[in-house]
Parts: sequence; C-alpha cells; structure tokens
Amino acid sequence: MSTIYMDNNATTKVDPQVLDEMLPYFSELYGNPSSMHRFGGEVGGKITEARERVAKLLGCEPREIIFTACGTESDNTAIRSALNAQPGKKHIVTTRVEHPAILSLCKHLEKREGYEVTFLNVDTDGNLNLNDLKAAIRDDTAVVSVMWANNETGVIFPVEEIGAICREKGVMFHTDAVQAVGKIPMNLSEMPIDMLSLSGHKLHAPKGVGALYVRKALPFRPFMVGGHQERGRRAGTENTTGIIALGRACEIAGEHIAEENDSVKALRDKLETGLMESIADAKLNGDKEKRLPNTSNISFGYVEGEAILLMMDQLSICASSGSACTSGSLEPSHVLRAMGVPFTFAHGSIRFSLSRFNTEEEVDFIIENLPRVIENLRKISPFSAKDSGPACTPRSTE
Amino acid sequence: MSTIYMDNNATTKVDPQVLDEMLPYFSELYGNPSSMHRFGGEVGGKITEARERVAKLLGCEPREIIFTACGTESDNTAIRSALNAQPGKKHIVTTRVEHPAILSLCKHLEKREGYEVTFLNVDTDGNLNLNDLKAAIRDDTAVVSVMWANNETGVIFPVEEIGAICREKGVMFHTDAVQAVGKIPMNLSEMPIDMLSLSGHKLHAPKGVGALYVRKALPFRPFMVGGHQERGRRAGTENTTGIIALGRACEIAGEHIAEENDSVKALRDKLETGLMESIADAKLNGDKEKRLPNTSNISFGYVEGEAILLMMDQLSICASSGSACTSGSLEPSHVLRAMGVPFTFAHGSIRFSLSRFNTEEEVDFIIENLPRVIENLRKISPFSAKDSGPACTPRSTE
Repeated sequence: MSTIYMDNNATTKVDPQVLDEMLPYFSELYGNPSSMHRFGGEVGGKITEARERVAKLLGCEPREIIFTACGTESDNTAIRSALNAQPGKKHIVTTRVEHPAILSLCKHLEKREGYEVTFLNVDTDGNLNLNDLKAAIRDDTAVVSVMWANNETGVIFPVEEIGAICREKGVMFHTDAVQAVGKIPMNLSEMPIDMLSLSGHKLHAPKGVGALYVRKALPFRPFMVGGHQERGRRAGTENTTGIIALGRACEIAGEHIAEENDSVKALRDKLETGLMESIADAKLNGDKEKRLPNTSNISFGYVEGEAILLMMDQLSICASSGSACTSGSLEPSHVLRAMGVPFTFAHGSIRFSLSRFNTEEEVDFIIENLPRVIENLRKISPFSAKDSGPACTPRSTE
Repeated sequence: MSTIYMDNNATTKVDPQVLDEMLPYFSELYGNPSSMHRFGGEVGGKITEARERVAKLLGCEPREIIFTACGTESDNTAIRSALNAQPGKKHIVTTRVEHPAILSLCKHLEKREGYEVTFLNVDTDGNLNLNDLKAAIRDDTAVVSVMWANNETGVIFPVEEIGAICREKGVMFHTDAVQAVGKIPMNLSEMPIDMLSLSGHKLHAPKGVGALYVRKALPFRPFMVGGHQERGRRAGTENTTGIIALGRACEIAGEHIAEENDSVKALRDKLETGLMESIADAKLNGDKEKRLPNTSNISFGYVEGEAILLMMDQLSICASSGSACTSGSLEPSHVLRAMGVPFTFAHGSIRFSLSRFNTEEEVDFIIENLPRVIENLRKISPFSAKDSGPACTPRSTE
C-alpha cells in the first residue's frame, strides 16, 4: 500500500484542481498585479476573484480579507494590530492550548514587551469555562484570542459565545481558525468575531499563503510596512499563485463541507472505534462531541508516541504525536498537559487527522496493523500499567 | 508579436526549470518538514538543499540564510531585528531612493515609534556621497540600510565601501539586494555586510518567497513569532514549494550570471542606444556605468509616462513608469525626484528591465515602434520644450 496520509492538521495535499488553477500564473501569466499594463492587470483580476471566493466561504465581504503568507503571519498581524491600535491597553486574554503562533507570541509579549497575559485553563475534556473568560477581561484588555478548533485534539471552542462576551465588554476578539476553516460552516457576517486567521495549506491550497479576516470598520494597524498592496494593509508583492490557489481551495472546501461532516467524519469514527475497541489502555483526548469531524487524538498508555510514529512510518502511515509545529521536542504536548492527561498517557498520544482524500481501505489497514505495533512496543516499555504517574501540571511561561 | 515583457524589475517569469523542480511538492510530496515521518522528512531534505543553493549564490554559509515570504518581509525583519537587538539605539541611516519596503518602514518608525532617521541624498546621477554617510552615523545609530542596486534606475551603490564604513563605526549594515542578487556576482563571506534581503520573484522564482541573510554571530531578533521553524528565527510553516523554487532559481542564476552581464547587457545597450538616437529630448536617468546590466530608465521629455505605457500596452510591450510597488499614484517617482530630474522629464520616465528571456527581435520591435508613439503623444502634450519647469525638491516625510 502506498503512503497513508492521516496528518492533515499538519498540512494537506494540494488538491489537483487547485494546482490546475494556479499553474498558468507561474510562467505564462506572471505579471505583477501592481503594474500598469494589462499583463499585470489580468493577474489583479484573478486576485479579486480569489478574494471573493475566500469571503464567500467565510460569509464576509471581500474587502474584509487581507492575504498573508501563513496562519502565523495572520496571528502575529491580528495581535500586533489590536495592541498598536489601542496603545493604552496592555492586557491580553488567551488560552493555554493555543497554537504556538499565538502562545509563543503572547509569552514573548509578556516577557519582552511589558504586556500582561491571562492564559485560560481548560478542563480534562479540553473545554473552556466561560465564567473564567468573563472574569479575566479587564478594562485594559486589548484583545481576547481564542482558537476556533484545537489543532491537536480537534476540540471546538464556542467562539460565538466568546465573541458575544467580548462585544458586551467592548474588547476585540480574534480567533485562530486555521483548523476550522473548510471543516465547519461559518457565516462571519452574523457572528461577533473581529479578526480571524486562516492558512491555505490546511485546506488543500499550498504552503506559503494565508489570510486574515478583519471586520470592516475595526481599527487596524499593518504588521508588514512597505508598498501599497492589500490597500495598504499588508505590504509586499502579492503571492499571486498562492492567492489564486487559496481562492480555489476555499471554493472547493465550500462544496465539500457537507462531505467533511459526513463521510470524512464516518471514516474518522470508524478508525477511532476500531482502535479503541482493539487496544487496551487507549484513551480518547478531548470532548467527543464538540470536535472537528476529521480529528482523533488517542493516547496509548505506557508507550512513547515517537516510537509509535516510527513503527507506523515503517508501514507508510503518516500521523503526528502532537502539533507538527512543536515536534523535534520530547516534551509532551502543551495541550494534553493543560488538560491534565497523565504523563504516561500524554507521551503516548497519536493524532490522526483525515481529509476527503482518505479511503476506507486506509482506515481498515490501520485498524488491522496498529494493535500489533502497540502490543510490541508495550513489551519493551519501561512503564507499567500500575504506575500511571502524576497528572502534569500546566506551566505558563516556558 | 506576442507579449514583449521588459518589466523584470517588477517581477519575472518563473523559469520552466524552476517550475519543474517545485511541481512534485504540491500534490505528491506535500509533507510538512516539521513532521516526524519520512514523508515530511524528505521535504526537509529538499529545503536543506535549497538553503545550500541560495548560500552558494551569495557566497555565505547555509545557516546564514533565513527563508521569508518576500523582500518586504526580509526588509522589515532586518530593520526590526537591528532595533530590537540594540534597544538603546534610536537612529537609522538610509537613503531617499530606497524601495518603499525600507522607505515607508523608516518613515513609519520616525512618525509612530520615536526613532530618528537620516535620509541621505543622491546626486543627479543617483550616486551617494560617502562623506555624507560617514557624517550621518551617530553613537546611537542602530543600523545603516542602503540598497545594493536601485529598482528604478539600476544604479549600483558601493555596498562594500559602505559596509567598511559601518564596520569601522561599529554599526550594523543591511542592504536590500532584491534587484542585485542574480545580476551581480557577490561573495558575502568576504564583504562587510551584516544583513541582506532578496526576493524570489525578481530572479525567476515565484512570488511569495524571499530570504534574509544574517551574518553568523550577529545579534538577531525574530519578526514573526510562533513555531520553531528556521531554527526559531522565522515562525510559520515553510513555504516548501517556494523555497525549493528559490533554491533552484539561485542555482540557475549563478549559471547565467555571466550571460546577464554579457548578452542581456548587450540587448539593453542596443535598446537604449536605439531609443536615445531616434527620440529627441530623451534623457538617461542614473549613472551610465555603475548600473545593473538589465535596466534602462529613460525620460522622454514633455509626455506622461502613463500615456506612453498605455500606448506601449496596445503594442503588447510591458514596461514600467516607476517602481511597480508605487504605481497607482500619479506622483512622479521618489527616486527621480531625489535625483532632481525636472518635472516634465520625471513624469515621462520609462523603465525597461530585461531578462535572459528577452530577444533581439523584441528589442528591434521597440526601437522601431516607440519613436512614433512618443511623437504622437508629444503632439497633444500640454508642455512645451521651452518650459521644463523647476527641478523637483525631494521631500522626506510624505
């Protein structure tokens, strides 16, 4: 069997239809959209179309979309804009389970630039307490940033209620929706969300392009300063092929959003049930219901996630033991630690993240082969089922 | 005749060989280089190769290269890093003829963030006075930023001498080399340059990728904060296809650098001589010798550049009336104003920027057709040759 790719929360395959759409703009229609000649102007027209397509998926206006290079740039732009537009406000509210793009930035702002940050806790299912959120907002809070869906567990946060709380308190609300866009239907024109980050390569567009939704009339300050591109809101020659691809990917995502919540979810459920039934000491991480349809994060007790990944790699199965962006570290995931998952379980967690390109045959192959992998690894594990270790204490400033 | 593209300082065609190299990494080898599995690891290996290729063209070490999204991001990163790494230093030295990525950023820092900026003048040939530079450097100067070659005129600045002055004074030196890389041979290992910006789409890689050279051991502060990519120096999932393309484009640029200074230059010279000889009141802008081999900026007196461009567009000839990044404005180019080009000449300036994909046939076509275009426009021009207007006064804070 060829590669079984179940690491779609890390990155996705570029949809061949997306590639077809962007391909002419590399070596044939390669003009600069800022140029005065038609050769550049035609590319400008395609960017307008892409902006409309992205806006349609989000349910917002095209002028509310700023194209960026990635989700991280969108996140950095949103937080910096909120702070720079409200220079008197020095406090940020976020959660302990954000993507590193928000978490590292907030820790940096706290440590190096004199801001105060409240990091909200989550419960053992990965859910927020909205009373904690209300209590955390202060008069000098510049922005609340809470992700729409968690990249590791898929847990969905109640962004509509969070936004309503922020609006009532007069505080800007940003959501990192990198994992949600294309998987969850959304209509921003009817939601109290001020800024939203998305990334192309999480929804079958290429790496190197993202977008930031900024609600019209919201005060905004650019992150990247230079030329007049994006109506002065993001300098730098437009990544024309990436933007065109993102537009097409959003269009296709809109067409497949029911499938995502239907057949992709069915495959995910089959995989999850199959593994949980056949492997002892397996624990699902995160709220079972309020969860992305494509994501399953399972802890296999008393084994190392990295060892499982290596063995799966031998079988050409691609998955993740945590956020791809924090790999290379042997620390257990900050998300699972925040949820209080015991040490010996947090270390053995595997994230399966599916897409519409996965098949039932692939799911069957994993159900058939993974139990033996876990069993073999447990034979050589230094941990026993009797010593599950202490629950991890979340740490806020590392 | 099909499109004659002579706007290569605005953007370039992706070399088909570059496209071939990047193509498999969209829908086949689409792994995330940060992932633990081989599928991601293989992509990581290609990024290592790309970094080596970029480093080879610049004559530096691979670890001195940070991949970014564009020249503007490289410029923003370099200046912000210099300022954040030396918090006590509040002064910047740059020139009046920089690209907007530096110029607008410096004006923003002056206006909004309490920094002081010295904008150096140029003479009528577009050259800097190095004594002015020496005099401008102060004890609290954090960084000197001077472009390697001007995007509008092609004028080359003496970056080696500028770097030597900076090193003597203990000040960081950054150069925006977006127009120079691939056109001028360089060996950074032997040059007193601390940071250098480059952009992929100016050398036949796609839009959406750039790089920043940071000399090893130079204090550095990241611009984009988040994941651990680029050894913690630039967060965000790598634009794998863009980076692979940039690597290949640099490799090819290295192979063609003699051609750039030989056959491309010969074409440029033929075009320039042909137009200057057949059109009255035509004036070459910028130092004739110290200039990029591909660039010719000619002012045709008493006509509007935009009108010339429109008429050329009818003939499918693509050129520019100034930096593509500042187009959309009817203000004459800030570069030509800084050089004191008279109003009625500054407005009628056209930049021809060639590449290795241009042909002699194309040059002949322009020499044959442009004189008639200019002649027709002059018949309806409101300006006469007797009223050349005052020289423009450079303005520093617009």
